[in-house]
Amino acid sequence: MKNLILIYSGGLDTSVCIPLLREEYGYDQLITVTVDMGQPRADIQQAEEKARALGTEHYTVDARREFAADYVFAAIRANGDYEGYPLSTAIGRPLIATCAARVAERLGVTAFAHGSTGKGNDQFRIEFTLRALVPEPTIIAPMRERNLTRREEVEYALAKGVPVAATAEKIWSIDENLWGRSIEGGRLEEPDYSPPEEIFQWTLPPDRCPDRPREVTVGFQNGVPVSLDGEPLEPLPLIQAAHRIAGENGVGRIDIIEDRMLGLKVRENYECPAAVLLLTAHRALEALVLTRDELAFKRLVDQKWGELAYAGLWLDPLKQALEAFIARTQERVEGEVRLRLYRGSCQVIGRHSGWALYSEALSSFDDKTFDQRETTGAVKTHGLQAQMLQALRARR
Amino acid sequence: MKNLILIYSGGLDTSVCIPLLREEYGYDQLITVTVDMGQPRADIQQAEEKARALGTEHYTVDARREFAADYVFAAIRANGDYEGYPLSTAIGRPLIATCAARVAERLGVTAFAHGSTGKGNDQFRIEFTLRALVPEPTIIAPMRERNLTRREEVEYALAKGVPVAATAEKIWSIDENLWGRSIEGGRLEEPDYSPPEEIFQWTLPPDRCPDRPREVTVGFQNGVPVSLDGEPLEPLPLIQAAHRIAGENGVGRIDIIEDRMLGLKVRENYECPAAVLLLTAHRALEALVLTRDELAFKRLVDQKWGELAYAGLWLDPLKQALEAFIARTQERVEGEVRLRLYRGSCQVIGRHSGWALYSEALSSFDDKTFDQRETTGAVKTHGLQAQMLQALRARR
Amino acid sequence: MKNLILIYSGGLDTSVCIPLLREEYGYDQLITVTVDMGQPRADIQQAEEKARALGTEHYTVDARREFAADYVFAAIRANGDYEGYPLSTAIGRPLIATCAARVAERLGVTAFAHGSTGKGNDQFRIEFTLRALVPEPTIIAPMRERNLTRREEVEYALAKGVPVAATAEKIWSIDENLWGRSIEGGRLEEPDYSPPEEIFQWTLPPDRCPDRPREVTVGFQNGVPVSLDGEPLEPLPLIQAAHRIAGENGVGRIDIIEDRMLGLKVRENYECPAAVLLLTAHRALEALVLTRDELAFKRLVDQKWGELAYAGLWLDPLKQALEAFIARTQERVEGEVRLRLYRGSCQVIGRHSGWALYSEALSSFDDKTFDQRETTGAVKTHGLQAQMLQALRARR
Amino acid sequence: MKNLILIYSGGLDTSVCIPLLREEYGYDQLITVTVDMGQPRADIQQAEEKARALGTEHYTVDARREFAADYVFAAIRANGDYEGYPLSTAIGRPLIATCAARVAERLGVTAFAHGSTGKGNDQFRIEFTLRALVPEPTIIAPMRERNLTRREEVEYALAKGVPVAATAEKIWSIDENLWGRSIEGGRLEEPDYSPPEEIFQWTLPPDRCPDRPREVTVGFQNGVPVSLDGEPLEPLPLIQAAHRIAGENGVGRIDIIEDRMLGLKVRENYECPAAVLLLTAHRALEALVLTRDELAFKRLVDQKWGELAYAGLWLDPLKQALEAFIARTQERVEGEVRLRLYRGSCQVIGRHSGWALYSEALSSFDDKTFDQRETTGAVKTHGLQAQMLQALRARR
Repeated sequence: MKNLILIYSGGLDTSVCIPLLREEYGYDQLITVTVDMGQPRADIQQAEEKARALGTEHYTVDARREFAADYVFAAIRANGDYEGYPLSTAIGRPLIATCAARVAERLGVTAFAHGSTGKGNDQFRIEFTLRALVPEPTIIAPMRERNLTRREEVEYALAKGVPVAATAEKIWSIDENLWGRSIEGGRLEEPDYSPPEEIFQWTLPPDRCPDRPREVTVGFQNGVPVSLDGEPLEPLPLIQAAHRIAGENGVGRIDIIEDRMLGLKVRENYECPAAVLLLTAHRALEALVLTRDELAFKRLVDQKWGELAYAGLWLDPLKQALEAFIARTQERVEGEVRLRLYRGSCQVIGRHSGWALYSEALSSFDDKTFDQRETTGAVKTHGLQAQMLQALRARR
Repeated sequence: MKNLILIYSGGLDTSVCIPLLREEYGYDQLITVTVDMGQPRADIQQAEEKARALGTEHYTVDARREFAADYVFAAIRANGDYEGYPLSTAIGRPLIATCAARVAERLGVTAFAHGSTGKGNDQFRIEFTLRALVPEPTIIAPMRERNLTRREEVEYALAKGVPVAATAEKIWSIDENLWGRSIEGGRLEEPDYSPPEEIFQWTLPPDRCPDRPREVTVGFQNGVPVSLDGEPLEPLPLIQAAHRIAGENGVGRIDIIEDRMLGLKVRENYECPAAVLLLTAHRALEALVLTRDELAFKRLVDQKWGELAYAGLWLDPLKQALEAFIARTQERVEGEVRLRLYRGSCQVIGRHSGWALYSEALSSFDDKTFDQRETTGAVKTHGLQAQMLQALRARR
Repeated sequence: MKNLILIYSGGLDTSVCIPLLREEYGYDQLITVTVDMGQPRADIQQAEEKARALGTEHYTVDARREFAADYVFAAIRANGDYEGYPLSTAIGRPLIATCAARVAERLGVTAFAHGSTGKGNDQFRIEFTLRALVPEPTIIAPMRERNLTRREEVEYALAKGVPVAATAEKIWSIDENLWGRSIEGGRLEEPDYSPPEEIFQWTLPPDRCPDRPREVTVGFQNGVPVSLDGEPLEPLPLIQAAHRIAGENGVGRIDIIEDRMLGLKVRENYECPAAVLLLTAHRALEALVLTRDELAFKRLVDQKWGELAYAGLWLDPLKQALEAFIARTQERVEGEVRLRLYRGSCQVIGRHSGWALYSEALSSFDDKTFDQRETTGAVKTHGLQAQMLQALRARR
Repeated sequence: MKNLILIYSGGLDTSVCIPLLREEYGYDQLITVTVDMGQPRADIQQAEEKARALGTEHYTVDARREFAADYVFAAIRANGDYEGYPLSTAIGRPLIATCAARVAERLGVTAFAHGSTGKGNDQFRIEFTLRALVPEPTIIAPMRERNLTRREEVEYALAKGVPVAATAEKIWSIDENLWGRSIEGGRLEEPDYSPPEEIFQWTLPPDRCPDRPREVTVGFQNGVPVSLDGEPLEPLPLIQAAHRIAGENGVGRIDIIEDRMLGLKVRENYECPAAVLLLTAHRALEALVLTRDELAFKRLVDQKWGELAYAGLWLDPLKQALEAFIARTQERVEGEVRLRLYRGSCQVIGRHSGWALYSEALSSFDDKTFDQRETTGAVKTHGLQAQMLQALRARR
């Protein structure tokens, strides 16, 4: 008897894996694990129903609180970004694999399967996490290993009694968790095709947003948001509330060209209302409390963090060292940021902090202590070596 | 007879310098130079009139074309930014000093004065440029050297017959050129004071913008914009048109905390409609044509370029080396970007280029040539050293 | 009739490829190309003889001058280094592949084979170059594709009449070109095994070196060496002379742990006498003529250049952009450096340049122009934000 | 009654400060503080005697253990380096200022003086530390403020009865602590003047070193050395022993061009035997235990750490954040490194660690698990975007 844990979304790819794993790989005892990261309730239920229909032992894991507190909040502290993408799916994959590894340990299973293809990023993120957490795991990626085209996949599904959704729905390929939503596929892959309004579900179109600006205040402690408009909130409800407020005002649409891990450029559309709101606020607060040198160097740290998070290297020791740097800086990222949301735009309009490196008490330095004449020397030696060089050049 | 060139804006600070330079420094022959960088026509005229009234030999230099083509366009290629500020005043100062140095050379003058105080950035930018261009110049900064307070300055002006503008106007301290407008002073210096609508002159308030989105297409060649909506334009009129289009749709307001060169944090408000529009378009096109590694490394190059430009080190050899890097990458930054402007927001909605590293011809690679199974090895070795480390940790 | 170009060293791996390509891949018309990069004359001859014996159409390409002038000298300008390794083999592979592609174009061949295994770096370097230069090439890597063990390989060779060298010689696996020599294999792979004296051929053991220090002067122009001890030399003879001088004084042994491209750490021993001498001199001259900021940023550029060169991405656009940066800085890397070599050590003892940012003329600045009192302001504002932060902390 | 703490070395500059502070600044109650950082015993005693002769209240603080454990060891973990300089004096100044601040707090004094001139780095290092530790201190730098020439200084000293050392000794200006020794002045300032043997005191000339190589084993835990040749040692005696061993074998001489903080290039000679030995060992161990990505990013961190340490910004929050990064990586820097010292050269010949990312157990991966054929895909996609670009170029 061979058992195996299939990371299961309920979609076509992972559903097709079920007969494949049974018939082509000989796994007769399949365990499906669906991880709730904030995708629509209906998707979770669909996964549960399909699993029942296809006869697997099924587990749904509610990882929303952990995702919010440990993954999304880590991303906020790092201003989590990769080429303009707030890393929503990217930071979700390691937690999904971690949840699968936990179920596996509990059940004594060491074989895993996932539905990722051989072209995308998710195979890297999921398999790395499994290999890092499970000693010598068996990992199967049937979609990649069978090299199936979409058409072959649908035919196989129909032949094996796997439910296939009506085609209409499947124009777009969508992935959602509470930090963001990606929409791919069809003509959207063309870099010059304007995204049609229908692809957006979380953000109102700017011309249908409320006519009055919405001001919102985000409170931070230790680098993470802890309140909205003065109301203290736990991580999960805070993200959900930020999502709602931003989405209602058309904030959060992202349209970029992104470099996949294998080197292919793809055009991506995202809806990330909570991310745009909270990251904008976080950056504004950092600008108030961190020194110029901290800000400049943290940009390098954040850029590298974003690359590692995109690659799914959540457990990489470099990421841990970067986070030690980040944690030290975030001790002072405390205070409030006020933003104005209006029909798709999101503007910072004020910020304050007990750790502001601007303050009335200190700015007195500016007026009383500061004798302007003392700057003369600094001005004279500014760019001294470049001045010397110009003198050498002039002499030639 | 001692002559000297005063870099002259026509404002209070530089006007007060005129009697100061005569009476306290003994310069009896003053030459005032006003450089037209796109500030309001009225400012230029005011400078000319005051210079006549105060009896200086006056020159107005129209540097708008040079500023647009050689300074603003260099900034676009470098995605010119310092902590969120598009560097408008910062890149203007070196050209103003250069124009002054040119007049000086023509007239055989080697002494200069400017009206900058000892707290700000402009003294660094102006004096460095003069020292780099003029052999052993004499440079006088009367405001800094006299350490005058505002009140003392006004009293001195009144005593010497220097025209002082009505106080009402002077709540805000404003600097303008064709790449941007900065508004400082009064309560605006408080980081948590919401900027009042009255400070904005170049951008419509989002709620009074046109009700329909404005789509605009920016064409690029060699890393710089060459057309708007398909119409070829020279640098100066292109920037002016971009200014108008963005401003009419409320795009271009920037509210940041900025680290001055001496280390003081200040709250700054900017209006940079052309900059926001053109830089957004430029970045989007780079994402399409540059490789992932070029994009990542160019971020470092651009960050350093922004620091040097902010510091006024326009003639620094490091800046020249960075620009050699940039120039090489910009050869392929050619194509068009489509954006949608609406009530303060500015979204990219499409882009195309003959140098796109995405293309139908090449993506056939994706479908035909690419055997998904071949990715297996890359997935297994992804994060290999981190995997090894996890194994070592597990053994402890 | 199927023809193919085999990149041929004359060693066992590439010789075994000959019958393999004929029998298993069906290539009946084999063309072998051996590229002379400065490896021992005997190796070239052995390749020619074996090719004759095995019946291939053979070409030997003398690429030594091109390698010296275009590859080694590019490495010198970039202070070419990867984790302590002067990149000798790494920068040779792209040229070998380029030479093969040139022969291919001349003969109208589009299929290639090489002898690299699937564990090392060379497969990446060679295949990338071929793919970049030849439209849709066929590339075969028989060693990798057959996954042969060493034993299997030897058996196959004996069965097919491929000459196999006496085992004694083959304790160490050696690769040589005029920029360096690598020695691997056997117990040398153990990180803690002291390298035995016998592995070194190019450097005298320190205790058998001449008893008197050897002073040597290296002259540079435009970032590359142009003379030794005052005698002008072309790139190739200059490298050869530097090789001799350094080797005679025991200079050039390198013992490191290196991260291979696939993520395996390996212990490597190198002998690179010319590289150690010339790179030491180049760095010393840069320190004299480049500004502090240029030096600091060029370190990042050089580090990235080293990573790309190690990966064999000689034709990568990022490398070209980095080289544009480097070229701009090297214009002033002109002058002479004096070094003292003695029993394994290599010390700079003097340097001068017309572009020195140190000079008597300019240091008069130090004594006359410079009023020490003017530094006061710069000292007070040094670390201003950190001072503010300490004040905030004290108040808590 | 005005009291003040003078940071006192016993040399001419600080001795001249005593009458200056009394007569020109009106401080009648002077407290001198000499900090023992490992300089020669005689220097400490001379300071004590001169202080007695000049009638100050004197304190000698033995800071050697603290310097070794908290400053030197922090530098080792960061591979502490600035342009080739192991930062010996640079990291000593903040501790000297800290010791002075501690004495000040104990005695209730808030005024300080130091003997640094206005051209060098020490004024920045000392004053920043005092300003960061003492609320609103008074800081006097008489040498800088009086802008004295050397000749004026000596005349003043003779007039005031301050002992002036015989001129012969004063050809060179020397600074020493247990991490290094700097020698400046006279013809040594000429970049092309070969350093004469007489300036070296801590390292034997290579031709008078022992004729047999000295092998030495350095043991590390948590990123710092804890044993020599297997013998556990506390930080201070370990540094002293390393100093002796390296110095006896001619290891530790450094000759560089260095960029001072104000932008002047200076030629510097250092003797740092312990630093060269221990830093070489530390780097070799990091190469064995840190991942490739950790090594590459830590280079940036170390470079920035070196810049901050050189600038004396020991208490800067960015330095603290960098050290949090470093600390995380150093947890695994544990093991032993073997080096061979011989007549001025210092070669690593072996290393081992329980955290090695190379190990027999894991390299079995290399042989058994690893199917070479699986690398094919990674090789094909290596430099994919550069391949695409070449294809686009070929088509033009």
